[in-house]
Amino acid sequence: IAVASLDEALAAWRLLGLAETHREEVPTQKVRVAFLTVGESAIELLEPTSSDSPIARFLEKRGPGVHHVCFRVTDIEASIAELEAAGCRLLNRVPAPGAAGKRVAFLHPDSGKGVLIELAEKGGAP
Amino acid sequence: IAVASLDEALAAWRLLGLAETHREEVPTQKVRVAFLTVGESAIELLEPTSSDSPIARFLEKRGPGVHHVCFRVTDIEASIAELEAAGCRLLNRVPAPGAAGKRVAFLHPDSGKGVLIELAEKGGAP
Repeated sequence: IAVASLDEALAAWRLLGLAETHREEVPTQKVRVAFLTVGESAIELLEPTSSDSPIARFLEKRGPGVHHVCFRVTDIEASIAELEAAGCRLLNRVPAPGAAGKRVAFLHPDSGKGVLIELAEKGGAP
Repeated sequence: IAVASLDEALAAWRLLGLAETHREEVPTQKVRVAFLTVGESAIELLEPTSSDSPIARFLEKRGPGVHHVCFRVTDIEASIAELEAAGCRLLNRVPAPGAAGKRVAFLHPDSGKGVLIELAEKGGAP
């Protein structure tokens, strides 16, 4: 979820009973992220750290809201190969470094029919 | 996720390895929905059944994409009362009938800071 300010967004999510379980900066994506674990899933809040961050551009265009949906996978190279074989287009054919030390890959927006989809290799928390 | 056609969207999600686990029409919301279970979560695809469906209006305005995020709760009346006590605004102060026989309530969009949030009382599948 793209937000202008992690702290303001966290205050709103706290009202819903959800608290920050992990925070870090991801320089390669020019974002600061906070995770709010919910069962085996998590809400990820994304705050831009620079005006040329993809999240800053998203906020300018659409305002705060859901930026992408992420699925955890066991073996990201195998998932990338399977998806390419099935005809999906990927933005990352080689895994990129993501939050929480995970290796990630984004699908081309066309493959998600209006939903940007990320794969993240199962790792430690969150 | 709002989509123009369940069948076209399901074909795209099938490439990602996700299949329909439940389908039904929700006449009160003028939508036909398909659930794709993923672990303890689910992707819900929403297709409008009428041009005056809230999902038809969403598609007109923004195109296909994430419409709302739903959290499962154990006791929806208790959750509504807690959220109101915490200062959240709700669109449904009394639970409404949702998909899969669940009782649901939507928060006012202002409460989610750009994300429409639904609560659904834990029930059977999905």
